[in-house]
Amino acid sequence: MRITGTFIDEISHDIPHQNWGRAEWDRDFAHMKSVGIDTVILIRSGYRRFITYPSTYLKDSFGCYHPPIDLVELFLQLADKYDMKFYFGLYDSGEYWDTGNLQHEIDANRYVIDEVWQQYGHYKSFGGWYLSMEISRRTKGATEAFRTLGLQCKGVSNGLPTFISPWIDGKKAVMAASAELTKQDAVSLQEHEREWGEIFEGIQGAVDAVAFQDGHIDYHELDDFFAVNKRMADRYGLQCWTNAESFDRDMPIKFLPIKFEKLRLKLEAARRAGYDKAITFEFSHFMSPQSAYLQAGHLFNRYKEYLQGLTI
Amino acid sequence: MRITGTFIDEISHDIPHQNWGRAEWDRDFAHMKSVGIDTVILIRSGYRRFITYPSTYLKDSFGCYHPPIDLVELFLQLADKYDMKFYFGLYDSGEYWDTGNLQHEIDANRYVIDEVWQQYGHYKSFGGWYLSMEISRRTKGATEAFRTLGLQCKGVSNGLPTFISPWIDGKKAVMAASAELTKQDAVSLQEHEREWGEIFEGIQGAVDAVAFQDGHIDYHELDDFFAVNKRMADRYGLQCWTNAESFDRDMPIKFLPIKFEKLRLKLEAARRAGYDKAITFEFSHFMSPQSAYLQAGHLFNRYKEYLQGLTI
Amino acid sequence: MRITGTFIDEISHDIPHQNWGRAEWDRDFAHMKSVGIDTVILIRSGYRRFITYPSTYLKDSFGCYHPPIDLVELFLQLADKYDMKFYFGLYDSGEYWDTGNLQHEIDANRYVIDEVWQQYGHYKSFGGWYLSMEISRRTKGATEAFRTLGLQCKGVSNGLPTFISPWIDGKKAVMAASAELTKQDAVSLQEHEREWGEIFEGIQGAVDAVAFQDGHIDYHELDDFFAVNKRMADRYGLQCWTNAESFDRDMPIKFLPIKFEKLRLKLEAARRAGYDKAITFEFSHFMSPQSAYLQAGHLFNRYKEYLQGLTI
Repeated sequence: MRITGTFIDEISHDIPHQNWGRAEWDRDFAHMKSVGIDTVILIRSGYRRFITYPSTYLKDSFGCYHPPIDLVELFLQLADKYDMKFYFGLYDSGEYWDTGNLQHEIDANRYVIDEVWQQYGHYKSFGGWYLSMEISRRTKGATEAFRTLGLQCKGVSNGLPTFISPWIDGKKAVMAASAELTKQDAVSLQEHEREWGEIFEGIQGAVDAVAFQDGHIDYHELDDFFAVNKRMADRYGLQCWTNAESFDRDMPIKFLPIKFEKLRLKLEAARRAGYDKAITFEFSHFMSPQSAYLQAGHLFNRYKEYLQGLTI
Repeated sequence: MRITGTFIDEISHDIPHQNWGRAEWDRDFAHMKSVGIDTVILIRSGYRRFITYPSTYLKDSFGCYHPPIDLVELFLQLADKYDMKFYFGLYDSGEYWDTGNLQHEIDANRYVIDEVWQQYGHYKSFGGWYLSMEISRRTKGATEAFRTLGLQCKGVSNGLPTFISPWIDGKKAVMAASAELTKQDAVSLQEHEREWGEIFEGIQGAVDAVAFQDGHIDYHELDDFFAVNKRMADRYGLQCWTNAESFDRDMPIKFLPIKFEKLRLKLEAARRAGYDKAITFEFSHFMSPQSAYLQAGHLFNRYKEYLQGLTI
Repeated sequence: MRITGTFIDEISHDIPHQNWGRAEWDRDFAHMKSVGIDTVILIRSGYRRFITYPSTYLKDSFGCYHPPIDLVELFLQLADKYDMKFYFGLYDSGEYWDTGNLQHEIDANRYVIDEVWQQYGHYKSFGGWYLSMEISRRTKGATEAFRTLGLQCKGVSNGLPTFISPWIDGKKAVMAASAELTKQDAVSLQEHEREWGEIFEGIQGAVDAVAFQDGHIDYHELDDFFAVNKRMADRYGLQCWTNAESFDRDMPIKFLPIKFEKLRLKLEAARRAGYDKAITFEFSHFMSPQSAYLQAGHLFNRYKEYLQGLTI
């Protein structure tokens, strides 16, 4: 299963920045293109006070810092240049992480969506929206939030597609800043299906695709969870994507590039489940030949060898 | 004291993978050879469901994943090419880590040892066995397990040598996934001697060498512990090796290459104690010029300078 | 605001060593010089048993290890070569970290200061002293310790300047070996001013500059704290420097290079507050083109672009 999309991790929560400028990003888009990536997704347009584009609204309303470079413009220009689709990730005020209240994110993004579409909607590559709230299970208010935001994104943009990328509440669903690697109270397959079934029902029509993060369950659990995800997506008319994490959740260093064998296991499971598309979090740190983590360049090579052996 | 052996950390517990292919491994064996390494030790042939060679037994009995490459074959071919000895590390089902029960490891490896010797025993470089269970102090059943497995390895392979690499239960003996660097209840020198004396007595004849990991005690404790280790080894007719850890246990990032001065202190202490051989955990991440950790290449250079100044 | 000084992190507490030799250090001084650095500060001359120069006193009194290279001599030679000032960081016995007792550090450094000045005082670049005890708020005995040590440094060296680099007890003031990134009981602006006012009053005449570490408070708190620091420094006749941390405190990996935007925010705040000088902890790991962390080289490039756009 070929990876055809990648997140771009600006603004990052928990992965140290590479401090790339325009030249490095241009080269990275070329690397992405060379292995068949046609979609780039801005993980979020801002997080608390750090933002990716000089938003008048966010600076005025949230005290956000004026960014040193307009990354949204840069990524759209590069997506145009390399004939890719760009998905815009919504703003994350941090309020939801602190209080569990999603209303704040709805209110803030009502303005962000308008502002962004007005400023950047004319780029040929502007191809969709990523509802960036990362949730799991029956997060209070998630369905309504996704529905509201998805419809608004579509409303301003003539129906451009939207997607979400939640996590499965599996045994590896622990905080990045925790020293632990696993927890005891993982979700069961049945709970997962019941809870997500409700969410899928509630968001149909507002969200076009769901790309579950694939790193929170064990490798031998992939087939069961993926089958459930695909069945639910089909039932409610959503596309089923996989978010193939290219970093390793099993190591004390949080986080370095994944062992190729693990990535392959996850991609193969998605293929067997009949998934529609594979994206990754994310190419530039964990799979790029120019990543500061040199393991990423070797992963790139192993992945290319895998593609050459594939009959897709 | 020159390092003449290194572990190869496949399958890894806690060090992120470098994603090397055949070309990178070939170059790394050349780098090892260039500084006098004549022995490579596969740290373990498998860990839980991940395995290094396509074992029919392990796939059938433990649901192990078919590996993308036969690493045992690759390492044996390279050991042949570079005229080194290869030690095969036994399978680790994970059961012992979870429950403290070693019987499981004995049963699984009864089959693994036969399978491996049949498939790979003809390689010129197949030089011995590494009993991969990492234990410390009076782990329940350790003596019997080592004895049983050691004798079986020797039985199938015309008496090829076996060794173990336990840890000293010193103040740095904390879990890799813990944020802590030290603990309070370290073993005393007297307890260490009494408890390991019993184990050494029990394993003589089945195990040929003991390579204590050298990183769990403080640098000024090295001489005392090393003297005891050597005295015990001599008493029971075992070879006394040091496992000179080339990663740094004193830093919040777990783990990056060690400061050269620390490695030198440990090697010098082993020399003073009259140790028979020094191996390291491990060359490819922590001492190799092509490691993803660039500090490793500098450690390689400092180590070479040290060798040049040595009268061995 | 241009960075004109950097710490050299030997002996390190918590940043893994790069294992550089003379050639790498020489190149790094050239890199520093190329961006306007005129001051290098040895973070500490020793920590517990590890020392930077072959001190007879420290080996005899504390059982310190004879170092493989005389780093004090090396850094002074390079500072001479590149026409920089070298500040010598005092010895840290570890006693203060263990027991909170600073008397030990005063006693040990009474001898170290004499020994060092006698051995290295003739170097043209020997330009000052760094009182290396890292304290915060009203550490018991800190004022007296700084006063005593500062006066002694000045006494032997014809009044060469001295400085300290304490931390603000802000929300990010957590231990490096902790998994946490923030804490709840941060100091208020008023407490900070009151407590440090007392210290500044007590050390005037013995300490010439204070370089608060800038990484323990949030970015939007910088202006308030910096204004207070400058006002206090002015009141007591101290120079006000900023220690602009070039590593990122917001990430689970402790520590990798900082995102350029964050460094810029901190430097700009120091400029607005009218600070006298900016130094960084530290160039060689976090900003150098030859750092093992490749993000550092990109930070170097972003920082150079920033300098080119500056009207200083």
